[in-house]
Amino acid sequence: MREFDTICGIATPIGEGGISIIRISGSKALDIISKIFISKNNIDLKKMKTYTMRYGHIIELESKDIIDEVIISYMKGPHSYTTEDIIEINCHGGVISTNSVMNQVIKAGARVAEPGEFTKRAFLNGRIDLSQAEAVIDIIKAKTDLSMKSAIMQSGGALSKQIKDIRQYLLDTLALIEYGVDFTEDDEEIDETLIIRVKDGIKSTILKIEELLRGADEGKIIRDGLNIVIVGKPNVGKSSLLNVLLKEKRAIVTDIPGTTRDIIEEYLNIDGIPIKITDTAGIRETEDTVEKIGVERSREKIEEADLIILILDSSRNLEDEDKEIINTIKDKNHVVLLNKTDLDRKMEEINLNNQINISAKTGYGINELKEKIKELFFSGDINNESLIVSNVRHKQALYRSLENCEVALDKVNANEFLDLISIYVTSAMKALGEITGDELEEDVLNKIFSEFCVGK
Amino acid sequence: MREFDTICGIATPIGEGGISIIRISGSKALDIISKIFISKNNIDLKKMKTYTMRYGHIIELESKDIIDEVIISYMKGPHSYTTEDIIEINCHGGVISTNSVMNQVIKAGARVAEPGEFTKRAFLNGRIDLSQAEAVIDIIKAKTDLSMKSAIMQSGGALSKQIKDIRQYLLDTLALIEYGVDFTEDDEEIDETLIIRVKDGIKSTILKIEELLRGADEGKIIRDGLNIVIVGKPNVGKSSLLNVLLKEKRAIVTDIPGTTRDIIEEYLNIDGIPIKITDTAGIRETEDTVEKIGVERSREKIEEADLIILILDSSRNLEDEDKEIINTIKDKNHVVLLNKTDLDRKMEEINLNNQINISAKTGYGINELKEKIKELFFSGDINNESLIVSNVRHKQALYRSLENCEVALDKVNANEFLDLISIYVTSAMKALGEITGDELEEDVLNKIFSEFCVGK
Repeated sequence: MREFDTICGIATPIGEGGISIIRISGSKALDIISKIFISKNNIDLKKMKTYTMRYGHIIELESKDIIDEVIISYMKGPHSYTTEDIIEINCHGGVISTNSVMNQVIKAGARVAEPGEFTKRAFLNGRIDLSQAEAVIDIIKAKTDLSMKSAIMQSGGALSKQIKDIRQYLLDTLALIEYGVDFTEDDEEIDETLIIRVKDGIKSTILKIEELLRGADEGKIIRDGLNIVIVGKPNVGKSSLLNVLLKEKRAIVTDIPGTTRDIIEEYLNIDGIPIKITDTAGIRETEDTVEKIGVERSREKIEEADLIILILDSSRNLEDEDKEIINTIKDKNHVVLLNKTDLDRKMEEINLNNQINISAKTGYGINELKEKIKELFFSGDINNESLIVSNVRHKQALYRSLENCEVALDKVNANEFLDLISIYVTSAMKALGEITGDELEEDVLNKIFSEFCVGK
Repeated sequence: MREFDTICGIATPIGEGGISIIRISGSKALDIISKIFISKNNIDLKKMKTYTMRYGHIIELESKDIIDEVIISYMKGPHSYTTEDIIEINCHGGVISTNSVMNQVIKAGARVAEPGEFTKRAFLNGRIDLSQAEAVIDIIKAKTDLSMKSAIMQSGGALSKQIKDIRQYLLDTLALIEYGVDFTEDDEEIDETLIIRVKDGIKSTILKIEELLRGADEGKIIRDGLNIVIVGKPNVGKSSLLNVLLKEKRAIVTDIPGTTRDIIEEYLNIDGIPIKITDTAGIRETEDTVEKIGVERSREKIEEADLIILILDSSRNLEDEDKEIINTIKDKNHVVLLNKTDLDRKMEEINLNNQINISAKTGYGINELKEKIKELFFSGDINNESLIVSNVRHKQALYRSLENCEVALDKVNANEFLDLISIYVTSAMKALGEITGDELEEDVLNKIFSEFCVGK
């Protein structure tokens, strides 16, 4: 285990609440807390047992004035989050109380932790691998129970185990190749069965990686959410649709700071899939400057969308604006809702896929819409228990590994030199190592942890 | 100890963070956690020792699926916050993770706690008195170190002890009075020394209460902050003054929802005194409807203010608007800042108190302003270590007690019947009991705790 300095951070969300937690991690954690904590019975903290707590007061380092009434917990390394000695101070959850306690911890010798630094230490000290560390932030940011579940599986090491198994395949294959290279150096004939075994090894790896990648698109959606944009003229029923969708399972409502009120984003949850729905302003050409900005933003949102939901009023004829919208989205992933089916249909036929009759007023057709969304993005049952690759970084590394395996297989089939093949197999292994963090540049690592919240 | 049902609540602020705490309190706390927690070594939780922790997982009650990776702590009653058995679940600090764990706790049989219900139990179970319970929320809401310190003292029972001492005086006095009443019933002559001792008892009580009340106005300011309103025409330097004041010790910035941007509120900290500064719109008569609302609000703010700071531009002659403002504030607590003293003075003399020359641009005179504010509201040193009555409810109860003591003393001096005197002494005792909660109506109690945050 490497030796780091002792760090501290406020681990709970900032704001007024009953309790805040200040976490101290490092070899000096007990020393530091001893300077600023008076236990009720004046017992020596150095004798504190791991996984026990003490009631007492945090005092001002110099004046010894009482700062706050607290309970401290002690988790002795290596059986702690970071594998280092950890003290957690459970203090009053106000802004001043939390900062006052934090200030004493800093004065007593701890350094303020960077975002994600506690988890980074858990990784650098070997308790968890990188995919598990990344799962921690996925758990905290999870938007539905399903994304939470997927993150918990990954944090438990489910992905790490699969990657380790595949790497082992490649390692065995590499050993075979190197054994073969030794033979050729001695100008001996290579055993035909060795080549077959190398081929089998690479083939098995390819199959395994393909299996993992199969759920990756769905995994990304489960983790990051599906980005749906609603388009349609004013008064066709966009707001009613949003309301009818949100009424059932409202998740988290967000405001986009700095944007006009024309664009509204809401999160909802369809059978565990987190969905971000953006209600756009019109996309009609306009001369008005302010309106122009709105239209420009709407077009950007349409470009970024995973799916576009177009709403038309089926009780009226199409207008130029409708036709313009149809033209904009026809080559994109879309669903068309023919709203107001409770009224007589006047609308002419249009040449677009995935048309669904709905009535946003009565709720008719909403279930069909939800089923269509699931059908478009998920093959089969979503709530399965199998491992899902949900992180784009992992997916990209898997693809890179797959490509190298495929090239290696081609070279084996073409009877190329084993030395050359070994280069590709090694690259495939390296790509897998990026997922678990065995092979990773320092700056990539820093980028990953910088997205964490402070205190974790 | 009364027997309550088992309650649960999220004790940390709501939001994304590293850690959330879910607290369970009541006799079924261990039962409930046993149903939904799997410890790593599968040890029976019933054997868990007080003030120890366990690492493990929260599982879904029916499916047994893993919900989150957690650490639980156990504080066995009566040595806990509520004096009941308490389990705290330290889980991942996301919105979904926290709510998922909370849902399992509810499913397993705990009831969601009302705001302040944990602290209310600490009070009802006799661990703390009411003034200590009220100090808990003062700690959480404290805006400066000084208000935090005052709340911590009160939470430690400093006020309770004083009140208890004074009540004891009154109780002793009452015993004397009743002893005297027994004599008069037997038609015997009352001992003159008894009357003297009753008088002395009441006099001592009055002195004690007066001593406590002496710091009460300052205490209120330390707890609730000083409400200062800045008035002045546009362009006289209101914003510059605000900036120069905030630059030094910025505390908490608030937005008032639903109000116009014309009124800005900011918190600052002058030597530990929390100060809310409100920058108002003009107060000039206007025909414009929107502006009228702003002016109306400004006038309300001026009415509510503890102190009004008027800024004038000393490099110009007074205009009608200035004179109108001067007229509005002249009978109120005010300080006048003659700004732009770096320029030549053109302004005529005015008949207002507390005039200070400043330059908001250079910072000249700002210290004098601060000293003036302290001088106006604090007698002597603020940072003293003595107990401060900071809660208006306590202050009112002390005044009521004082009044009853004074009437009692008058009656004694007027040789009234002892029976009559005992009524006033009893009332004085009751008023003191309202502070500690020994004498209090249920609805007042509920009102006090309803102002708490959830989970405390």
